[in-house]
Amino acid sequence: MLNRVRSAVAHLVSSRGSPGSGTRECPTLASPDSTAPQGTPRSPPVRPDSGSKAPGGAVENRGSFSRPTFLQLSPEGVRRAEDQAGRVVQSPPDTGRRLPWSTGYAEVINAGKSRHNEDQASCEVVYVEGRQARMGGPEKSIKDQGLYFHYWGLFDGHAGGGAAEMASRLLHRHIREQLQGLVEILQDPAPPPLCLPSTTRASVSLDSPCPGGPQPCWPLQKEVTHESLVVGAIENAFQFMDAHMAREQRSQYVVGGCCALVVVYLLGKMYVANAGDSRAIIVRNGDIIPMSREFTPETERQRLQLLGFLKPELLGNEFTHLEFPRRVQPKELGQRMLYRDQSMTGWAYKKIELEDLRCPLVCGEGKKARVMATIGVTRALGDHNLKVCSSTLPVKPFLSCFPEVQVYDLTQYEHCPDDVLILGTDGLWDVSSDKDVAATVDKVLSSYEPNDPSRYTALAQALVLGARGISREQGWRLPNNKMGSGDDISVFVIPLGGPGSYT
Amino acid sequence: MLNRVRSAVAHLVSSRGSPGSGTRECPTLASPDSTAPQGTPRSPPVRPDSGSKAPGGAVENRGSFSRPTFLQLSPEGVRRAEDQAGRVVQSPPDTGRRLPWSTGYAEVINAGKSRHNEDQASCEVVYVEGRQARMGGPEKSIKDQGLYFHYWGLFDGHAGGGAAEMASRLLHRHIREQLQGLVEILQDPAPPPLCLPSTTRASVSLDSPCPGGPQPCWPLQKEVTHESLVVGAIENAFQFMDAHMAREQRSQYVVGGCCALVVVYLLGKMYVANAGDSRAIIVRNGDIIPMSREFTPETERQRLQLLGFLKPELLGNEFTHLEFPRRVQPKELGQRMLYRDQSMTGWAYKKIELEDLRCPLVCGEGKKARVMATIGVTRALGDHNLKVCSSTLPVKPFLSCFPEVQVYDLTQYEHCPDDVLILGTDGLWDVSSDKDVAATVDKVLSSYEPNDPSRYTALAQALVLGARGISREQGWRLPNNKMGSGDDISVFVIPLGGPGSYT
Repeated sequence: MLNRVRSAVAHLVSSRGSPGSGTRECPTLASPDSTAPQGTPRSPPVRPDSGSKAPGGAVENRGSFSRPTFLQLSPEGVRRAEDQAGRVVQSPPDTGRRLPWSTGYAEVINAGKSRHNEDQASCEVVYVEGRQARMGGPEKSIKDQGLYFHYWGLFDGHAGGGAAEMASRLLHRHIREQLQGLVEILQDPAPPPLCLPSTTRASVSLDSPCPGGPQPCWPLQKEVTHESLVVGAIENAFQFMDAHMAREQRSQYVVGGCCALVVVYLLGKMYVANAGDSRAIIVRNGDIIPMSREFTPETERQRLQLLGFLKPELLGNEFTHLEFPRRVQPKELGQRMLYRDQSMTGWAYKKIELEDLRCPLVCGEGKKARVMATIGVTRALGDHNLKVCSSTLPVKPFLSCFPEVQVYDLTQYEHCPDDVLILGTDGLWDVSSDKDVAATVDKVLSSYEPNDPSRYTALAQALVLGARGISREQGWRLPNNKMGSGDDISVFVIPLGGPGSYT
Repeated sequence: MLNRVRSAVAHLVSSRGSPGSGTRECPTLASPDSTAPQGTPRSPPVRPDSGSKAPGGAVENRGSFSRPTFLQLSPEGVRRAEDQAGRVVQSPPDTGRRLPWSTGYAEVINAGKSRHNEDQASCEVVYVEGRQARMGGPEKSIKDQGLYFHYWGLFDGHAGGGAAEMASRLLHRHIREQLQGLVEILQDPAPPPLCLPSTTRASVSLDSPCPGGPQPCWPLQKEVTHESLVVGAIENAFQFMDAHMAREQRSQYVVGGCCALVVVYLLGKMYVANAGDSRAIIVRNGDIIPMSREFTPETERQRLQLLGFLKPELLGNEFTHLEFPRRVQPKELGQRMLYRDQSMTGWAYKKIELEDLRCPLVCGEGKKARVMATIGVTRALGDHNLKVCSSTLPVKPFLSCFPEVQVYDLTQYEHCPDDVLILGTDGLWDVSSDKDVAATVDKVLSSYEPNDPSRYTALAQALVLGARGISREQGWRLPNNKMGSGDDISVFVIPLGGPGSYT
């Protein structure tokens, strides 16, 4: 049975069944990344097809469509990945070095929704230099002073693949940059100092009090934790990444926007940062632990309405900040219709006035909910040029680039090899519930030996195949998009314990 | 043991041990309230001590300090309730008619924090007339068409008791008013109509489609539930109550503001609406079900900061929307200090600039957290005249009068006589955790027969005594405010099942 399953999977996934990729020698995987982006990245726009690397290594122009480096796809492999009829599931090759922690990964292109797969992914081990190393200290001390973090990112692009590709190449560098000033502080068990000397390069001890002492105006001063410094660094890295995209916006290369779901493992803790409608869950001993929330016009309705209420100029004369259960018709003027404003969760009736005939800022339900009748997510990177359809009104002011960060302390639990963190773009979650995914975790992992490192990629493949409309129970039937997701799907499976983890 | 406990309690509570109150004949309890406030209440300011009832019955001027009507206190009883040395626990008399559902109640004044007990409470059965009755239909149909709701409210006043007293007398009437247009809709099992004819008094069927039909602009129209109509009615009632207070603001009678925690039982569901830092929990079969969240400068930091960021004019030149872990000193200009803005949950360092020397909009921690260095709650009714200390800057724009409403469907569970909904002002929760309260529920209720209707008042008294620093385990020691809460404390205990409930 197990062999039959594996054999069936082999016909549907690329890295094992495809000549020229499954049999290739394993190229080197991404080594620890120590190339810093510019302090505040200011690389000029990169022209498509220029073939040159952007200044500071900020934007690497790859000319056309690409897939994640760790898939190690040949040009032929990339073409296969683009085939929207076959929708072959792609995974890293099953030979040679694996992704860190034996992470599993699988993806599939959409069924014709866009020309390219607009999802992107990255998986990196990133070294953050300590201050002494950056100041040119003795060579031998560099390694001692720095910190490593492990990094996984899923980027679900919209209105083009440029933003997702840029984020997949650069967001971890922005995170590194934000962490650089914190290396010594994070390594010091004492609480972070509230105030630092003005020049980080000065040789003043971080523990020394601010000149003149703190002299607080209120009796208690807040104690800030190391954890909240890392959270702040990730939040600001998202903001810098978004500003970086704004500078590149004139380039054809960076078009559209992307949802971003990233995980940073640093000093024993997993930081799961989500901006958009991807999702992360932990499956531990069969239990489901949500590690993210989705940010959509429905979940962020009140934030959007409040902004429209406080800044009506952002609505032009086209939108109203009030929500109605359907579009109001001119002939309904003077009648009473259900509505809710930025402060309400319930509904009430109001008399329809002229300005209520404008399109509601937030409308629709579920996957059809939209901000300004244009976009279905409310947090994303990019979208700096996004305008309301048939209008010059910008949508960006209503979009937030800030992630919500949830923290999971790996040291607080004993993990077995079947405990995993699952990251998936919405193509997975549109058709698979958390329980479906947890059931697949159980089924697939129990059919592999606990120490078989290929089990996590097999699980990622099973999740993608299941979401595509193909499942083991159905005898690996041919794809039927009516049954599954026709969207791009990308999945990481990160084991939280067991052999091969924490490398 | 049980008798000893009861006897000990009798010395500490008013309604049983006090001559002149425990032995009084039971006056009539508040009967179903059918006096409507004005459509949009516009009663003029009421002068203190004028002795006249305000127009429309809106504000009943009681001249001086008062306690909830259902306590049935004599003038001597009110004086006893004011005694801040003894801090006697007050409850409704243990004779005659009880509060609906055999609800328990107890309260105690603070230990000198303010001259009067600034908490207020109300407990009512309210009749909402149907449309036909309001339109002068045949007398016999009135009862058939209307709806009753049960109502409990706790109002924790600050900066004076006027707002709490006004809310305790009027908020349920505003709720009734908001529900009046919904009686037929709530009684109709069909989903509420999205659009109504312009005149509610017209004899058009509510089920008839809007003229011209709905013709929605997006394919799906939202289905709005009956439940969300009640939620919307309660939300708007809070808003009308707040606007009503604004109109009365010149009166000395209505000073300060109040947190409001109210429960509406209507058609099988409990609607728990909270604006402030009171708290509601259900204790069911020993499990704790939180039924409210507190709204404080800490829990609403990001909302407050966003408002300050978008409307900097509200900050004057006195405040910054950024948060710092302590007040920044002028000599720290140019140094780097931890901060967070409206989008961050983590912390990061920033270089101190001149405007960072302003007082942070949100500062302090826990009970010492303040908005504009002035007030420790962020949702309340009233406060229309509240200014920043030593300034003319109004605080009100940062305060919300909207409650968060949580719904509990009583018909979904089998309840036993020990299942209760506990409402308490912050005087209780400052010193008693949810678990403490649940433990007291278990201890006290198990020492009474399940059908003894006095058990819920005994429980309320035990909760207040415990929070005051007196507990059964400690042998009912004399009060020691260092051990307990020195604040006003008010507690409702609402049984969710068993004899006497649902009357």
